Amino acid sequence: MAETSGRNRNLGVCYYPEHWPRQMWAKDAALMAKTGLRLVRIGEFAWSRIEPEPGEFDWGWMDEAIETLGAAGLKVIVGTPTATPPRWMLGKHPDMLGVDAMGRARKFGSRRHYCFSHMGYRHECARIVQKLGERYGKSPHVAAWQTDNEYGCHDTVLSYSRSALRGFRDWLAHKYQSPEALNEAWGNVFWSMEYGASDEIDLPNMTVTKANPAHELDFWRYSSEQVVAFNRVQTDILRQFTGKPLIHNYMGRTVEFDHYAVGDDLDIASWDSYPLGFLEDRSERDDEWKQRFMRQGDPDFQAFHHDLYRRVGAGRWWVMEQQPGPVNWAPFNPAPLPGMVRLWTWEAFAHGAETVCYFRWRQAPFAQEQMHAGMLRPDSEAAPALGEAAQVARELAELPEIACGRADVALVFDYQSAWGWHILPQGESFDYFRLVFDFYRALRRLGLSIDIISPNDTNLGDYKLILMPGLMDLSDGLKTAMAAFGGTILAGPRTGSKTGAMQIPLPLPPDIPGLDCTVEHVESLRPGAEVPLADGGAFIHWAESLQTSSKPVELTGEAKPAIVEKNKTFYLAGWPDQKALTRILKNLCTQEKISTLDLPDHIRVRDSGPVRFFFNYGAKAASFEGIDLPPAGVHWHRL
Amino acid sequence: MAETSGRNRNLGVCYYPEHWPRQMWAKDAALMAKTGLRLVRIGEFAWSRIEPEPGEFDWGWMDEAIETLGAAGLKVIVGTPTATPPRWMLGKHPDMLGVDAMGRARKFGSRRHYCFSHMGYRHECARIVQKLGERYGKSPHVAAWQTDNEYGCHDTVLSYSRSALRGFRDWLAHKYQSPEALNEAWGNVFWSMEYGASDEIDLPNMTVTKANPAHELDFWRYSSEQVVAFNRVQTDILRQFTGKPLIHNYMGRTVEFDHYAVGDDLDIASWDSYPLGFLEDRSERDDEWKQRFMRQGDPDFQAFHHDLYRRVGAGRWWVMEQQPGPVNWAPFNPAPLPGMVRLWTWEAFAHGAETVCYFRWRQAPFAQEQMHAGMLRPDSEAAPALGEAAQVARELAELPEIACGRADVALVFDYQSAWGWHILPQGESFDYFRLVFDFYRALRRLGLSIDIISPNDTNLGDYKLILMPGLMDLSDGLKTAMAAFGGTILAGPRTGSKTGAMQIPLPLPPDIPGLDCTVEHVESLRPGAEVPLADGGAFIHWAESLQTSSKPVELTGEAKPAIVEKNKTFYLAGWPDQKALTRILKNLCTQEKISTLDLPDHIRVRDSGPVRFFFNYGAKAASFEGIDLPPAGVHWHRL
Amino acid sequence: MAETSGRNRNLGVCYYPEHWPRQMWAKDAALMAKTGLRLVRIGEFAWSRIEPEPGEFDWGWMDEAIETLGAAGLKVIVGTPTATPPRWMLGKHPDMLGVDAMGRARKFGSRRHYCFSHMGYRHECARIVQKLGERYGKSPHVAAWQTDNEYGCHDTVLSYSRSALRGFRDWLAHKYQSPEALNEAWGNVFWSMEYGASDEIDLPNMTVTKANPAHELDFWRYSSEQVVAFNRVQTDILRQFTGKPLIHNYMGRTVEFDHYAVGDDLDIASWDSYPLGFLEDRSERDDEWKQRFMRQGDPDFQAFHHDLYRRVGAGRWWVMEQQPGPVNWAPFNPAPLPGMVRLWTWEAFAHGAETVCYFRWRQAPFAQEQMHAGMLRPDSEAAPALGEAAQVARELAELPEIACGRADVALVFDYQSAWGWHILPQGESFDYFRLVFDFYRALRRLGLSIDIISPNDTNLGDYKLILMPGLMDLSDGLKTAMAAFGGTILAGPRTGSKTGAMQIPLPLPPDIPGLDCTVEHVESLRPGAEVPLADGGAFIHWAESLQTSSKPVELTGEAKPAIVEKNKTFYLAGWPDQKALTRILKNLCTQEKISTLDLPDHIRVRDSGPVRFFFNYGAKAASFEGIDLPPAGVHWHRL
Repeated sequence: MAETSGRNRNLGVCYYPEHWPRQMWAKDAALMAKTGLRLVRIGEFAWSRIEPEPGEFDWGWMDEAIETLGAAGLKVIVGTPTATPPRWMLGKHPDMLGVDAMGRARKFGSRRHYCFSHMGYRHECARIVQKLGERYGKSPHVAAWQTDNEYGCHDTVLSYSRSALRGFRDWLAHKYQSPEALNEAWGNVFWSMEYGASDEIDLPNMTVTKANPAHELDFWRYSSEQVVAFNRVQTDILRQFTGKPLIHNYMGRTVEFDHYAVGDDLDIASWDSYPLGFLEDRSERDDEWKQRFMRQGDPDFQAFHHDLYRRVGAGRWWVMEQQPGPVNWAPFNPAPLPGMVRLWTWEAFAHGAETVCYFRWRQAPFAQEQMHAGMLRPDSEAAPALGEAAQVARELAELPEIACGRADVALVFDYQSAWGWHILPQGESFDYFRLVFDFYRALRRLGLSIDIISPNDTNLGDYKLILMPGLMDLSDGLKTAMAAFGGTILAGPRTGSKTGAMQIPLPLPPDIPGLDCTVEHVESLRPGAEVPLADGGAFIHWAESLQTSSKPVELTGEAKPAIVEKNKTFYLAGWPDQKALTRILKNLCTQEKISTLDLPDHIRVRDSGPVRFFFNYGAKAASFEGIDLPPAGVHWHRL
Repeated sequence: MAETSGRNRNLGVCYYPEHWPRQMWAKDAALMAKTGLRLVRIGEFAWSRIEPEPGEFDWGWMDEAIETLGAAGLKVIVGTPTATPPRWMLGKHPDMLGVDAMGRARKFGSRRHYCFSHMGYRHECARIVQKLGERYGKSPHVAAWQTDNEYGCHDTVLSYSRSALRGFRDWLAHKYQSPEALNEAWGNVFWSMEYGASDEIDLPNMTVTKANPAHELDFWRYSSEQVVAFNRVQTDILRQFTGKPLIHNYMGRTVEFDHYAVGDDLDIASWDSYPLGFLEDRSERDDEWKQRFMRQGDPDFQAFHHDLYRRVGAGRWWVMEQQPGPVNWAPFNPAPLPGMVRLWTWEAFAHGAETVCYFRWRQAPFAQEQMHAGMLRPDSEAAPALGEAAQVARELAELPEIACGRADVALVFDYQSAWGWHILPQGESFDYFRLVFDFYRALRRLGLSIDIISPNDTNLGDYKLILMPGLMDLSDGLKTAMAAFGGTILAGPRTGSKTGAMQIPLPLPPDIPGLDCTVEHVESLRPGAEVPLADGGAFIHWAESLQTSSKPVELTGEAKPAIVEKNKTFYLAGWPDQKALTRILKNLCTQEKISTLDLPDHIRVRDSGPVRFFFNYGAKAASFEGIDLPPAGVHWHRL
Repeated sequence: MAETSGRNRNLGVCYYPEHWPRQMWAKDAALMAKTGLRLVRIGEFAWSRIEPEPGEFDWGWMDEAIETLGAAGLKVIVGTPTATPPRWMLGKHPDMLGVDAMGRARKFGSRRHYCFSHMGYRHECARIVQKLGERYGKSPHVAAWQTDNEYGCHDTVLSYSRSALRGFRDWLAHKYQSPEALNEAWGNVFWSMEYGASDEIDLPNMTVTKANPAHELDFWRYSSEQVVAFNRVQTDILRQFTGKPLIHNYMGRTVEFDHYAVGDDLDIASWDSYPLGFLEDRSERDDEWKQRFMRQGDPDFQAFHHDLYRRVGAGRWWVMEQQPGPVNWAPFNPAPLPGMVRLWTWEAFAHGAETVCYFRWRQAPFAQEQMHAGMLRPDSEAAPALGEAAQVARELAELPEIACGRADVALVFDYQSAWGWHILPQGESFDYFRLVFDFYRALRRLGLSIDIISPNDTNLGDYKLILMPGLMDLSDGLKTAMAAFGGTILAGPRTGSKTGAMQIPLPLPPDIPGLDCTVEHVESLRPGAEVPLADGGAFIHWAESLQTSSKPVELTGEAKPAIVEKNKTFYLAGWPDQKALTRILKNLCTQEKISTLDLPDHIRVRDSGPVRFFFNYGAKAASFEGIDLPPAGVHWHRL
């Protein structure tokens, strides 16, 4: 499945045989195959049917389901069901529930009601995964495995349980070796917060005013590591039984744990792409924008995640769940414009996805997601997504070879920075994802194809331009790589402004070798307030006062330094609005001889090897560079 | 008191003799009588004075109060004091407190601090009601009884207590007979939520993400039934001692329990009408509207409730508490425009009220409601309401016979739908009361008099037009009645879209016999987004995609079906704005030869038997069809 | 330090030697002295370093710090460290934590995590204060003492702990002597809230709907008295060891306890002035205003507090913490305009401050306040505040004698009214501080210098004009003083409208001797709603209907009484907007021959003895009465 030819790209679907009478399965499988789907994910919420009573297994239905699908020529992705422990699990582990920041246990009755720190539950997960591995590890119908489901969804990474408290204390004891070292690292002399023993340390919730940010950051790190460890228990076991790829399906704009670190134990990264739900639920854009794109989704949100998970999967990635119609969980849930399901699918392939699976096959008439569309309606009639998927399947057969080579431009995305700035935003508008995404949007508006990279990626050789806005902690390794890099780097705002211990470093930030500038002080700006730039646009949300003896590249309207540069390393002293950001990035591209476009809001472009794709996210027909695109239109041609 | 003549309509007042020195009582009674009041409600918050210590009763003051009022020619309504258990009750039943959705007991120190599921407290209520019945059941001065006070006020229907948990488990065990049946009905296979025994089921609060809507709906049903049972304990006892009518005073826009079901055990329904408080506190209207009507109240809100409680009381209904001046509990509390207290009173009589009681006689200078106006000021001087009430009393003497016959138009209001769409709104703007009230407002704007009916009212014979927007579950009985009905029916949006088990029915909605249409998918729309209609106006909040092979009656701007019809049964595929709704309803009226008016915002009309009433809710004088109405003006004439 | 000469006004700084290596101390001290600072506050958060283990003291570092500072010619203010009990204190007193209104203990990990009612912790505070007094009470370098830090900050006055419950019950038992008396005073007959014993009374949180306002007000009084008692424990001990002034540093717009009562035990009042933080965090002004003054602060907020603490300190007051640059805790944190730190300092001196201390010396690179600017940057380079402070130090040497005599105008500010109207606002916009501050702003706009006085200040002799808006309870003493007063008094709205027991008084309010008016009813007004006044402007937020037989001074647009007057005592029947308020106050000034100015938004004036100060809060240069003021400009001249 690592092929790069369009003909070997796959479509798939998420299916719940346990929801439907057995007599429907074969017909379902036949229609899937006829539609052109090749992969079917099953099992990830079925624990209560696999193991109805503790230790009593019912494999019959699952065996039959896999056989039925396999007989239709479909390949199966088996999901481990650990996101939905059955009710009887609470009898064995009454304290396994996650606990919210107010100290309240989050009860059974939906899903993800487990605390990542609970060792008893982790052991139960090992047990069920072992059973699944034993039974299906060698199945010829099984093509891949998915661990759990959407780690972190429903705000489940941070849990303030007794298990987490015990685990955190141990983790701190290992990390710091002594209370004195911890006190020093955290600066606990401030406000007499010093600890005499690690078991005096509590979780950083419910404090009178903000807890020490170093305390909070360590708890986020600890919590992220529990997700990694929880996942690794499953991958370690599965690898004993199968050589098929192991996958997890990440959720959009979920940054509470380190996706790279979880990805290191996987073969393929995947994510669940709900463009309309995310636009309503996870975007800072204004009402006008949300209304304009309500049936198409944000033109850049999916692309960002595609590029992110290409890196998380080290090049191999899928969309595991693709929105097929209206969903049930956003504040408002409109239907996709006809053609959008096809467009979203092609946008994924253009970014290098190996597989796009639609969620779900048939709309369930019951329970929480009964208003979530499928490829079929509850009465088994075709919903619009079915035809669009079939169209993509036909089109895939005619796609020339495509491949995702390295892009010219790389954008650093860092989970620790997301945590750090969440803990210490310094201004209500400061959000790390929002900042990086603003840069991403501006790049994409310029028609660029982008790689997202981790701050641990210190082999920077091939890129022409690397952006690292808001990268909290510039490691020595990265600084060395930056010094050796031959292309252009743009850092700032806030880049390098904290140590790993969440302190202000000395020398003061950004302390980029060779760059003559020091951040004197920073300002967070209320909505409406801005710092105009002499060359157009303005800083919004965030502005820094720079001390420098060199001549700035750009100035603010008050002739203060806005951008400084040395040897093609630039430092940006604020958060530019889209106008300024587009100008600044375009200038850098020009200097690096990267060609750019000037795309309107609704047109997007993506190069994948020899092929250039065009997407019309508008609700009206549009024309760009002589190419006519209907609403939701997709076009590609060889470059 | 079932007379239909204006001369026999009554005014009354709520009075708290326990708040005032005994020497004031006779003077108060004399002034009440002189004002033209005939009824006085007492006792409903006086438990601590009736039974100061457990089992020790002090009847003297209440005997004297009733005698004093009776001696002045007034009749008494005795309220059972069960909404305000004394502090000593907690000593006997420490766990009787209601528990909020976060699991926190709601403490003593205001009122309604009991859980409807607590059997110990229910027994105490039986005891005090028995005592009251024994003492005053045969009193010649007592004309009626009120049970408790404002069930559900202060969000008290749903309680997440241990008592509720026990009761709910028993209720489920009875309803479903087996865990398997419950799992099947709720669709618990979804997310492995299956239960092995009824004592594994918890209350549906504090789950990680939304609980199963079927789980929630059953808990709302269970909770509603506890209110019914709680009330029935009181009515069963009182009927042993009195033949006088039993009443409860419902609160405006309180939908958490089934008012019809409680009403089945009553003789008269009543409600507490606070037009200014409700405008500020319980309306989605915008600031402009609220400011325009801040001293008059919404022109349709009271009328809606009048019509609702006429049905709840099977034709017999009162206003038990009528706002007399500024209240204390809304976000902002202006004073009524001079004349509004009279207007509100007349609007009630025009809708068939037998009695309107003002709340309260004299403003209390202490405790929570010290800023709540009365008919008298705290210093016993007349407040504006006193004079307006006296005017109504004089006018009543000259009113011709009025009677509420059946209206031409009926609007279905259903509590279960209110619960269902609260649990599963699918879009933040979707609220069942709001939807039905939009229809009501449009009808009233057309000058119509309306009956509100229950979905259990399957004798539809006399109506010309029946509206059933958002009626969640179309029962077989109602479907049969609809098929036999000779008039016009307008269903939709969302009508018939769930089974009784909160699942999507098959065949898909609306599945109205004879009507060729299927809802393919639905959209919830953000504020500002709309689906324009070809004939004017638009769908807001909600739009449905209809599959039909017949020619639609109306189309959307994109030529999709907006309304379909067969044999005078119409299905409406969205939530129309007022412009569209007025047009649609006017068309239906025209077809049914129901004559309509075109009223401005502030003028309202109500026909009551041979009399047509006109009300000016505007702050300025207005003229309509040759009738001049001063601000807050009321006019009536024979048709 | 009671000198009134400019040359003896002092600058100081807050310093944390425990945060820095000892080798830095002498250099720091030298630079402080060179800058012109004379005072250094230390120690108030250093408990964990003073007493690292229970009963084990480490005085060495503090001795050395004081010696080092003293050797540089600096004087020290020693802060008692009771706002930050060390972690080991929880081992001794696990139940010492404050408890929030939802019943949740507020955990260790920041500061102020103690309950004022906890006697064990109060004893610990006595112990540490005794130790500090013993050690430094006679030190020649110690010039003053500060108790605790910012009482009430982070919402810490009200605690719903077991300790508070026990204390409150005792307090009530003492106050009322019997449950019957308490029931009578609170009006507990209402809703059967009567108690049979004081141990039946709970804290007034988590009730089903609002608790009895008398219950709440008594709990606020009790809680305020705990702060007074907590502070007095410290002052009583310190006075055994020192004759130096005792000070507390109050926080801006913190009204949950009676600052006058705490001040009665102090020698000097001080407050912590963060103009930019307060503008974002504690102002009702709109976005336009906040953006306009985002780098200057509200032009009246600091002045109000200066005048308030002059009264709290009986004439002697300081700014203990002066914002020097961006802070970390407001929603948005911009940097002061160059010159503003100087301006703020001079505004304080113009209002009579003896000392202004900047917070903090060097920005800490760690813990919660790492983004809070200091006079030095974390790398010990000068931040902008250092130069501005040095400039003030130089300018002070040339200032003529200044002195704060009694102003012509006094404005009553009362903590109990703040509590009462918080508990019973009657309309969401009604806030006592906001009301009084609106009056203050209008006075200051007229160029007036103002005294703020307590309602206990019944020696009114010298003033020409006294304002008492919203003063809840007019005591007999104050009424007597008012009757004897020869100047002009303006009362209302809401003045005198409650008894001490939080009841409506009889005769009805305002019941001001000689004044023929009665408040018939009141209205709270939604934003946008107003009651126009015949002479211009309008009532907003609040309007009263007055009954009077005398001719009003002003009328509303509907010719109702807006202001009534008798013998120069005026009653104002509403909350005037700034336009009306300015007009009304200007008229009163004219009548009292108080000369006024007409200042633009950004210019402010303050007279201090023979000197008139002018301040430009604008971001642009301005000219006023021939005086040119640059941005952030300060000017003074002899009158």
